[in-house]
Amino acid sequence: MPSDRIIIVGAGIIGLGIGWRLARAGRDVLIFDRDRAGRAASRASAGMLTPLAEVRHEEEALLRLGLKGLEQFPDFVAELESESGFSVGYRPDGVLLVGVTRDDIEYLRYRYDYQRDLGLPVAWLSGGQARAREPQLSPQVGAAVWCPGDHQVDNRLMVKALRAAFLKSGGCLKESTPVETIDVARNRVRGIVAGGKAYPAATIILAAGCWSRLIPGLPGTARPPVRPVRGQILRLQMTEDCTLKTIVWYNRAASSAVAYLCPKDGGRLVLGATSEEMGFNDSLTAGGVFELLRAAWEVVPGIYDLPIIETAAGLRPGSRDDGPILGKTPVRGLIVATGHYRKGILLTPITAYSIAELVLTGKVPEDIRPFGIGRFA
Amino acid sequence: MPSDRIIIVGAGIIGLGIGWRLARAGRDVLIFDRDRAGRAASRASAGMLTPLAEVRHEEEALLRLGLKGLEQFPDFVAELESESGFSVGYRPDGVLLVGVTRDDIEYLRYRYDYQRDLGLPVAWLSGGQARAREPQLSPQVGAAVWCPGDHQVDNRLMVKALRAAFLKSGGCLKESTPVETIDVARNRVRGIVAGGKAYPAATIILAAGCWSRLIPGLPGTARPPVRPVRGQILRLQMTEDCTLKTIVWYNRAASSAVAYLCPKDGGRLVLGATSEEMGFNDSLTAGGVFELLRAAWEVVPGIYDLPIIETAAGLRPGSRDDGPILGKTPVRGLIVATGHYRKGILLTPITAYSIAELVLTGKVPEDIRPFGIGRFA
Repeated sequence: MPSDRIIIVGAGIIGLGIGWRLARAGRDVLIFDRDRAGRAASRASAGMLTPLAEVRHEEEALLRLGLKGLEQFPDFVAELESESGFSVGYRPDGVLLVGVTRDDIEYLRYRYDYQRDLGLPVAWLSGGQARAREPQLSPQVGAAVWCPGDHQVDNRLMVKALRAAFLKSGGCLKESTPVETIDVARNRVRGIVAGGKAYPAATIILAAGCWSRLIPGLPGTARPPVRPVRGQILRLQMTEDCTLKTIVWYNRAASSAVAYLCPKDGGRLVLGATSEEMGFNDSLTAGGVFELLRAAWEVVPGIYDLPIIETAAGLRPGSRDDGPILGKTPVRGLIVATGHYRKGILLTPITAYSIAELVLTGKVPEDIRPFGIGRFA
Repeated sequence: MPSDRIIIVGAGIIGLGIGWRLARAGRDVLIFDRDRAGRAASRASAGMLTPLAEVRHEEEALLRLGLKGLEQFPDFVAELESESGFSVGYRPDGVLLVGVTRDDIEYLRYRYDYQRDLGLPVAWLSGGQARAREPQLSPQVGAAVWCPGDHQVDNRLMVKALRAAFLKSGGCLKESTPVETIDVARNRVRGIVAGGKAYPAATIILAAGCWSRLIPGLPGTARPPVRPVRGQILRLQMTEDCTLKTIVWYNRAASSAVAYLCPKDGGRLVLGATSEEMGFNDSLTAGGVFELLRAAWEVVPGIYDLPIIETAAGLRPGSRDDGPILGKTPVRGLIVATGHYRKGILLTPITAYSIAELVLTGKVPEDIRPFGIGRFA
């Protein structure tokens, strides 16, 4: 019995990231997913790496985690691309946060003042200055905050690269194989059962996104308090007449959609995303698509004639304070890495590095200490 | 050589309808389509049979054709369902034309007065009366015209039934077989070439929708002046909280979309349709979907949470006066049946009956005389 085997539940970008780091460190890693790798929230994401644009007053610890996570991105990507042989479309583009109405602009100013207080490298732009940076912006845009430190990656390519790198490093991936139960005895993990077969393991990492608390066999104290938060997203095809150079981000007042327009290599424009508390309902809806299109059209009218290539909806794992849930649990051998909400792609490198370090050394790295499951106890 | 063979170019609902009538009259009929039957405009339609709701001042002849066509629907459907064994979802529902803004309601009144002048059975309703008929209507709806004589059918089921009935009657259907050329000599058709093979025929019926004028070999005088008019359409899934009883129709002022919400058997809600002059570009677009959702949401706010099941775009065959192009051409043996624009489903029975009669008797039936290709000469 391979007592040093590590099992990861969930082959989303988080599970694959951790698995890759552990497999390349020489460990015996087995990842299970009920579907194909990266088909859930990892796929529905837009690949925004935008801790500056997303900063909120109540979340300083999360901001620090995001900034450090972004700092780690270039090295993580360089290694990943070299080992997997795939590009992941990493782009240090910057983000334009824009406002249209007086309400929008007041909120923009409030956020900008806070970003400045934190010493973040941001700049206030007039509508004209914003249009000089992104000519596709509507004349209605009255002001903007330029966040040059925010970046992006192609989340789907990153999943593909992580899957390949994980397998190349000797990891084993069981897709379309739901974990039926986690076997816990005397407050210690012993393994899992999947496809009617028992797989012993001394370490189990729970990285199953919004489904993480539902895996049978989990004791109550180790059940991460995550819930699904639906995100709807569209992919458009840019044309010669309407090609964006930079990411445009619009917090439309009184709308359930934070609208961003994120241009990708190859001419795709990702338009996201709603944040809806609808339980496990992952339908695309009339209202969701309407809100996204309205907000995007208000700030970039040229999208009107662009073809819609794809529509999608996904379920993000949200926690009670919007921060991830990372590290040990009260059950020995059971580690959690979920609850990344809107920041799963951004936090993939720092999660992968930290959880791998925790498994390899037994010590909880400084970076993730504020994000333990204990804070919800 | 079967000199009495009839070839139909196009297996849309029009080509299939004509083919069925001719095959069941004992004729040797061969239909070609470049795709599968009914995959173009016939599929993207909503199956509205609504000559009253669509009436316009400049189109009295077209109105008469539509009303007579609708009169023929029940018999046509009864025979079709009995011969094919398929239901086609025919429903004599009625349509509520609704208005929100003062502009909308003035236009509604103008249209209503004209409908009354023509002696059409319509009724003016207050907003409250309209909501009594359809409780899902928004409180913003200020007035409505009730058109009880307008009906609907499931266009996709009708294609399926016509295809089956045509084949059962001994017709032959060649799908995925584009017609390469129409062979005309001494101003008389001799047959067609498809898949590199010649098919002789004394009669050829051109029913290829907006592609009808592009079939190689057509002399200029026989080329029907049709152009593609794009229509975008959505299919939603109704829920217990939001189920419509009747068709709601909203001509939103200053919008490229005539929005209608058409509830179907099985709980689908078809939401159509844009009318866009975009050439052969059949993309779904951000603007098209946005206009449909905005207009539908304004008059039936409950659609907000409904899942979007399908998005589609199709190309209608539009003529210069929006009327169909039906009957003989200057080329002997060549008959046209296209240009049905927004009324292809409604006009299927009358087109099928009339064109079959023309082929069988050589005489142009009274009903279609105003719609000959000669009017554009």
